[in-house]
Amino acid sequence: MTQNTVSTGEQLLPLFPENATVDAHGVLAVGGCAVDELAERYGTPLYIVDEEGMRAQGRRFLHGLRDRWPRSRVLFASKSLPVVAVYRLFAEEGLGVDVAGAGELRMALAAGVDPASIYLHGSAKTDAELRLALESGVGTIVVDNLDDVERIERFKAVAQRVLVRLIPGVAPETHASQSTGSESSKFGLPFEQALEAIARMNRSAAFEVAGVHLHIGSQVLATEPFAQAVAAVATTGGFDQYDVGGGLGVRYTLDDDAPSVDRYLDAVVAAARRHLPSDAELVIEPGRSLVGRAVTLLYRVSTVKHTARTFVAVDGGMSDLLDAALTQQPYEIANARRMRASCTDLVDVVGRQCESGDLLVRNAALPTPRPGDLLAVPAAGAYSFTFANNYNGALRPAVVFCAEGESRVVVRRQTYEELLAPHLP
Amino acid sequence: MTQNTVSTGEQLLPLFPENATVDAHGVLAVGGCAVDELAERYGTPLYIVDEEGMRAQGRRFLHGLRDRWPRSRVLFASKSLPVVAVYRLFAEEGLGVDVAGAGELRMALAAGVDPASIYLHGSAKTDAELRLALESGVGTIVVDNLDDVERIERFKAVAQRVLVRLIPGVAPETHASQSTGSESSKFGLPFEQALEAIARMNRSAAFEVAGVHLHIGSQVLATEPFAQAVAAVATTGGFDQYDVGGGLGVRYTLDDDAPSVDRYLDAVVAAARRHLPSDAELVIEPGRSLVGRAVTLLYRVSTVKHTARTFVAVDGGMSDLLDAALTQQPYEIANARRMRASCTDLVDVVGRQCESGDLLVRNAALPTPRPGDLLAVPAAGAYSFTFANNYNGALRPAVVFCAEGESRVVVRRQTYEELLAPHLP
Repeated sequence: MTQNTVSTGEQLLPLFPENATVDAHGVLAVGGCAVDELAERYGTPLYIVDEEGMRAQGRRFLHGLRDRWPRSRVLFASKSLPVVAVYRLFAEEGLGVDVAGAGELRMALAAGVDPASIYLHGSAKTDAELRLALESGVGTIVVDNLDDVERIERFKAVAQRVLVRLIPGVAPETHASQSTGSESSKFGLPFEQALEAIARMNRSAAFEVAGVHLHIGSQVLATEPFAQAVAAVATTGGFDQYDVGGGLGVRYTLDDDAPSVDRYLDAVVAAARRHLPSDAELVIEPGRSLVGRAVTLLYRVSTVKHTARTFVAVDGGMSDLLDAALTQQPYEIANARRMRASCTDLVDVVGRQCESGDLLVRNAALPTPRPGDLLAVPAAGAYSFTFANNYNGALRPAVVFCAEGESRVVVRRQTYEELLAPHLP
Repeated sequence: MTQNTVSTGEQLLPLFPENATVDAHGVLAVGGCAVDELAERYGTPLYIVDEEGMRAQGRRFLHGLRDRWPRSRVLFASKSLPVVAVYRLFAEEGLGVDVAGAGELRMALAAGVDPASIYLHGSAKTDAELRLALESGVGTIVVDNLDDVERIERFKAVAQRVLVRLIPGVAPETHASQSTGSESSKFGLPFEQALEAIARMNRSAAFEVAGVHLHIGSQVLATEPFAQAVAAVATTGGFDQYDVGGGLGVRYTLDDDAPSVDRYLDAVVAAARRHLPSDAELVIEPGRSLVGRAVTLLYRVSTVKHTARTFVAVDGGMSDLLDAALTQQPYEIANARRMRASCTDLVDVVGRQCESGDLLVRNAALPTPRPGDLLAVPAAGAYSFTFANNYNGALRPAVVFCAEGESRVVVRRQTYEELLAPHLP
């Protein structure tokens, strides 16, 4: 999938976390922790988080937006990496959080996030989830449909702050499964229905309608669609709050040209200046672009086979990096202990699951691979842990935070006992 | 995705389990258990297993093959539905089991399956997995590559029974991710390398080479590719055992024309008679076709929205039926309490996950849908529980066995406490 052929793994360093380095022996380190020592200590597959890099990216969004539009707010779109320690990390940096469903809401609360800074999303909220949100004092509920309105009213909310999710009618270039802003989207309401819903809520004591929300999709690599979406939403009238969603893409491969945070904020705020009331609150919801680069996924090679191609099989796969199969997301990969070795071989890195679709990186350039090698996938933070599953009895990997040479587990690796525990005779 | 439009849900009954019925009130029942009572008792989403139907399908394969080729063996390809109670069910019916990796092996052992009847698969076996297999007395290891050979020898196996997985060079018509028999497959060895490996193993006391294995892929709806694969493998020489894999498709929609077990066995055995030694042992490994029809997936409708289309959102989705998104597998769906009601509305049934790809059934014909409705997806047994994940904080659903009006939980529903437990500060 990747078209680019590197001559050493070190050339991929710009894709790895900002605090990734290569030591004198050619070993990759993240946050000052050599990944071979991490593998030894915590096992593989392993999600390795550059804690300081993730914090820095949060601040980049927060301060970058505040500098351009002082009355603003950045929410961590937590579905991209639902780890309690990550909820806490972004809360500590001053970000709010967006959650969808009771599970993510409970994780945010477990992390000690201030409920007032939580936004509850979802196009299929249940009674139980809305009740939990109201009882927990969730700051803002994003109304997706008229059932949401009816339920919030029925549960006798008092001045619950809400946004209304609009369908902006903008379809950016991304994988179809990640495009959420076109007219045929399952998310949100067309403008006319949204305005009716707002009128209805404005007549009820249950609601305080703060404004509107839109989201055009995920892994968007151009800035124009964001600006178009802001322009479209502005036509619905003047509100106190405009939540323009997330969707900024991540640089997964050297071929990707992802906009910087600054370029993205420039585009969004330029559109806001042009179209939105100058005293409105501007909210953005980055997910993928907050967490993507900060996480490296480490595998160990199980087998190497030379048949029609050279297949390098690792000890993970669709169970921990589903996006490679689900959306054909291209990834790069490097030999983590031989970052400066010459990449002499062109191979297919495949996962351990019994399915041909379990192909992680096609045409990867690597030093001659051998069983036991450690391979590192950069930009593996978004939607990897999210989809972790037990296909072929795989165990959910551990997540470790690394900073200044210290590492700590923030999600324990699943055990076989835990895998078997829910099974009854 | 489905082209067919039914006028009542009852017309889908041929896709539901063989022991599914519709009672006098129009309510779907499985194994004599009304699904609305199951929803009340166990919650939704819920995997409902027709226990007797699953047993009958196991016997159909076992006796059908034995009648045609007495020296034969049927293995349950357990990746399709890795539930301890299902391993036990098929073992009780006299089937062997195929496992890939330590997790599935431990599930089989936990179910009390005789280790001698276990076949260990995998194109990325680790040292630990091979050691566990040898210590557990696994009957047969399917050698996928030369690293497997080297390891088994190194671990000082004594006369370990093995098969060698061949690349048959047959590419049936199915989703690319499910085609495993073509030359570019990550599974198995080309004939020449396989014969070298066999010669090497025949010189070692560590191995007893019983024969060869092949698998052309999954959800194959024609019988000719199976026959072609048998013919291809026969050219490698005379062995005691031929394992021709699985892959028989399931009828997911009324439009599907899946071969019957009898038609499939006729084709495989006709090819075996023509190409294989008459005294050889013939092994097959059905997975999807053993479990697919026996499981009904039950959802509750959360919201109904009329925008560009009518969207019916349920309380599950990619978290419990990933194949709809991963391989675009079309499914049908029915209102489980109104199976005889007129299907007046054409709707898109979507999941609860925050992703446009989370579309379960496009253009489903249903009686006018309302929040609280129970919707049942037939033929949901294969690769649904397998991929269960926590996207958007969804909890892994429960699995219940139903037979003769009695139900029992065989996999407990995950709890929020369990979801949070592995997260550390």
